[in-house]
Order: sequence, then C-alpha cells, then structure tokens
Amino acid sequence: MHILTLGAAAGGGFPQWNANNAQCRRARASDPMVPPQTQSSVAISLDGQQWCLFNASPDLRQQINDNPQLHPRADGPLRQSPIRSVVLTNADVDHVAGLLNLRESQPFSLFATARVHTTLRANSIFNVLNPDYVTREQTQLEREFAPLPGLTVTAFAVPGKVALYLEDPAAEGFGTVAEDTVGLEVREAASGRRFYYIPGCARVDDALRARIAGAAVLFFDGTLFTDDEMLAAGEGIKTGTRMGHIAMSGPEGSLAALADVAVERKFYIHINNTNPVLMRDSDARRQVATAGWEVAMDGMEIRL
Amino acid sequence: MHILTLGAAAGGGFPQWNANNAQCRRARASDPMVPPQTQSSVAISLDGQQWCLFNASPDLRQQINDNPQLHPRADGPLRQSPIRSVVLTNADVDHVAGLLNLRESQPFSLFATARVHTTLRANSIFNVLNPDYVTREQTQLEREFAPLPGLTVTAFAVPGKVALYLEDPAAEGFGTVAEDTVGLEVREAASGRRFYYIPGCARVDDALRARIAGAAVLFFDGTLFTDDEMLAAGEGIKTGTRMGHIAMSGPEGSLAALADVAVERKFYIHINNTNPVLMRDSDARRQVATAGWEVAMDGMEIRL
Repeated sequence: MHILTLGAAAGGGFPQWNANNAQCRRARASDPMVPPQTQSSVAISLDGQQWCLFNASPDLRQQINDNPQLHPRADGPLRQSPIRSVVLTNADVDHVAGLLNLRESQPFSLFATARVHTTLRANSIFNVLNPDYVTREQTQLEREFAPLPGLTVTAFAVPGKVALYLEDPAAEGFGTVAEDTVGLEVREAASGRRFYYIPGCARVDDALRARIAGAAVLFFDGTLFTDDEMLAAGEGIKTGTRMGHIAMSGPEGSLAALADVAVERKFYIHINNTNPVLMRDSDARRQVATAGWEVAMDGMEIRL
Repeated sequence: MHILTLGAAAGGGFPQWNANNAQCRRARASDPMVPPQTQSSVAISLDGQQWCLFNASPDLRQQINDNPQLHPRADGPLRQSPIRSVVLTNADVDHVAGLLNLRESQPFSLFATARVHTTLRANSIFNVLNPDYVTREQTQLEREFAPLPGLTVTAFAVPGKVALYLEDPAAEGFGTVAEDTVGLEVREAASGRRFYYIPGCARVDDALRARIAGAAVLFFDGTLFTDDEMLAAGEGIKTGTRMGHIAMSGPEGSLAALADVAVERKFYIHINNTNPVLMRDSDARRQVATAGWEVAMDGMEIRL
C-alpha cells in the first residue's frame, strides 16, 4: 500500500493567508527548518496506478500538480486521471472544497456519510461534479466499503464537532451528531494490514485505543500542541476543545493518551499554523519525536 | 495604479487536472515555452499597500503565497492582510471558490450583484466568511462603487451566461439574466485613467466597443482561440458560444471585433487549457501578437 501525504496542515494551510506569527513569517521567508505545508489530505494506492483521496483539500489543484503520481499518464487518453475515488471524513471546508477542482466530467466515486452528502447536496456549487460521471456513495458507520479494488475502508465515529459553517449555536454540542466526524480504518485485503486516518478527533477513549492497537500506521489529529495555543498567541478566541480537536500535549493530550498503544508508525497530520511542531528546531518537535511520533509533510510517501 | 495578474487561465487552470492534450503535457514537463497558469484573477492597488481582488479563484491560496504583495507585512499585527476587498464578475466556480480561503475573521468587503450574492447565500459553505468581519456589498449595474479609497468601479452587463452549476435546462438562455455576468470599468479618481476587466463575454457589440474606446488597459475573455476547439480536440462537447465565451479568431471573434478600438494595451485573460496561445511558440500566439494583443500570465504586474 502506498500512502502519499498531499498536505499536512490544518484548515488555512501553512502559512495561513492572514497569520503573521513568527513561524508563518519563517515559512514565508523560505526558512529550511520551517517548510510550508498545504491543507491535509492523503492519497492511497495499492498498485501506484489507481488512487483514492482521503478528503479533498482546497489546495488539491496544487497538490495534483506537485505530485506526478496523480497526473494523467503521458500515454493515456485525452481525458484521464489516476484518481478513482474520494472518501470524506467530514464536511469541513478544508476537507471538501477541493471537490470543486474535480470537475470536467471525469468519472470517480465520492464516499461520505449521509450527513456529509446532505450538506454537499444543499450547496449547489458542488453540482459542478457532473452526476453523469460522479457517483455519490453513502457510507454507513462500521460498514466496510471498497474505494479501490482490494482496499476496504470502514468509517467509524470519533468524538468531534460539526463543521464550523453548519454550527447551530442554540443546540447542544452545536448540533453535532455521531457521523459528522469519522475516522477511517483502512485494510489491504491481500495482507490484512491496517492503517488509520483520523485528522479530526476531540478525545481519545478506550474504544479508540482498542481499535487502533496493532495497526501498521496511524495518521492522527495534530491540530494544536497545547489546547489554548491560539488564545495564548493572541491569534484566536477558541481552544482546541471548542474546535473539536484534542491537543498533543498535556495530561489529556494525544501524546499521553496514545503512549501505550502499539502502532508501528504514528504520524501527526492536520497541523494548525500556530503549532510549533511545524518548526523542525522547536522544543515541541523534539518532544513529539522523543515520544515516537513523526510529523507528516507534503509529498511524503510511505509504503506498507 | 498597480494591476497584478494572480492567474491567467480559465476554469480548471493550466494544466487542467484530467486534461492530457499536448500543451498540458508540455506544461507538466516544465517546458519553458509553456508555463503553467493558475485560474484567472487580478489584484488592483493604488498605493501598493492596499489591494482589491477581481474574482477569487480556487487557486487563491497559492496565488497569495506566490505574490509577496499580498502577504501580511512582516512588521504588522498577528492577524493582517493587504486584501481590503473582492469584486466578483459572476458566480462561476473559478471566480468564487477562492472566497473559501479568506476565512479566519479578517475584515474585507465583498462586492457583487444581487444575483451573485443570492447564490453565495444559498450555499452555506460560504458562511465561513464571518459576517462580523466580512461585509457583503450589493452592486447595481452602471452605478459606481469604491472598493479602495480613490478607486471607482462600475459593473456593466456583458453578453454571457449564468454559471454552469446554476443552469436551468428548461429556460431560455439557461435562465441567464443581465447581471449574471458583468464587466468592470475601473477608474483612478486622481488621473481619470480607465481600465477594463472582462474575463467572460459572449459577444462584442457596438455598445461595448464604444465603452472601452480610449481606455489605458483592457483585460478580455481569452477562453478559446477557435469556437469549436474543445470539440475539435476531442476534449469537450461544447462550443465557446454554448459556454458564453467569444473566441479570439474568426469573423465573429474578438480579434476582429476589437481590432479598430483604440486601447493602449490589450491583454487576453481567462485562457482555457485547450487554447494554443498558452504555447509561446504557437501560430496562434504569433497571430495574437501581430494583432497587437498581449497574453496575461501569472505574476505579471503592470502600472498605469
């Protein structure tokens, strides 16, 4: 299995257009210790020819251009793409806006829960995905589906929050329901090896720990290093808890919560522009590495 | 006045993700005669400090990263952007999707006709533009407004077509009304110099010729070189006429229709991936140059 990181950053990317913190300034100045990152998405393939995207980031056009694996084959027909399918984990802008790039009557399958499909249908702009070519497949929690031949995926609910633009301020939990945010369990049929993609998660509980134990690879929510870093930096008014994202550090953080879970390789992804792990020379980055975690980065391809 | 071309290509950009024609392949192979282009948009400034965008392309995040003029000032506050306003010419995906990048509670003004604002309001995903910070200003045809101090803009109807995803197959002209597609007349108050931005236009009539005569600069719809080039290439089933875009060549084309109109500099913009003018060594490019036209390209900044 090929896992290609198209983008490693959280919504807004790194640097973010209107963020002027020290690490965004270093990224803009081409500091080699602080490389820019596009918004989070990974592409999966078994044969290196047919690919499935997990989420479609607003940077998808740039990501396709930057990764030859996703170009039409030079000897292919006039209209061609190696992208066979897209699986969505929620309806966040940074996970769905890239669908608007997948126009021009190219056949592919779009997998998402009923909640996410309802949001897409309610937004007419997504009608640029020609229904004669793009099939919208509704996934059920805990029910396997196959976005590529030989690859099975199971979506499962994780603690999270409905997309910001869909929040209902009057409702408990802003109107969030279980299937608003899912993690993906991925299994290669031939080898049975498992990998998890969980770019948004508010809390790690025993059920989640038990599920991922023994996996080959985990990609996990790396939005914030500390729960209040956006407030502390003066750049925002929300904690990670409020945004539906567990922090890395602290007694309730993912470093502690996942320390004893046996996984061969653990990667943080969906990393906010305020998170100091984006600087390779930061203390936070060293702490994460010492704990056995890697930090995903644009263009990184790993094989299982 | 500064006019910065953020992107020169039509919807889908160049190369387009699933297009495998010879010129897209040359662009992917980094042929210096065929440079890639992002999707069409220009940024305007009088002082080089405050900028107004004409349309917000899906590539806007990359365009901001690529153009230091649009970065936060290194000595500015933690949240800052030189982008003060956005003016939309229609609701096409390649003109509005970039708004989804302008999140994070940054104040700016968004100018568009009532028809375009209605479409944005009907698509909840655009609620990521925080209403406490982003003011939506409704423009009237032929009524001046000021997206920057000292800069006046007048939107005027041009022959065109409603956005693809809003087409009503049962209605005459697919349900298009006058203000679905506008051109922009731009005037620097201090000098009185005029410039026109018309990225989509189905037909050049006497009224349009009379309006633009004597302008300093024209940016005009350069989608196709020949009306049927997408069919001829086997890449599409629509003519330019069907898509609401006049071709460059032919007796009804823009080269002929605008040949006698006195404009200091004429640029084609919004250029489709099939248009041979994207190749600097093509006959089409030479014909265009011989007729006194320039072809816009990413990063080009001109001053009036």
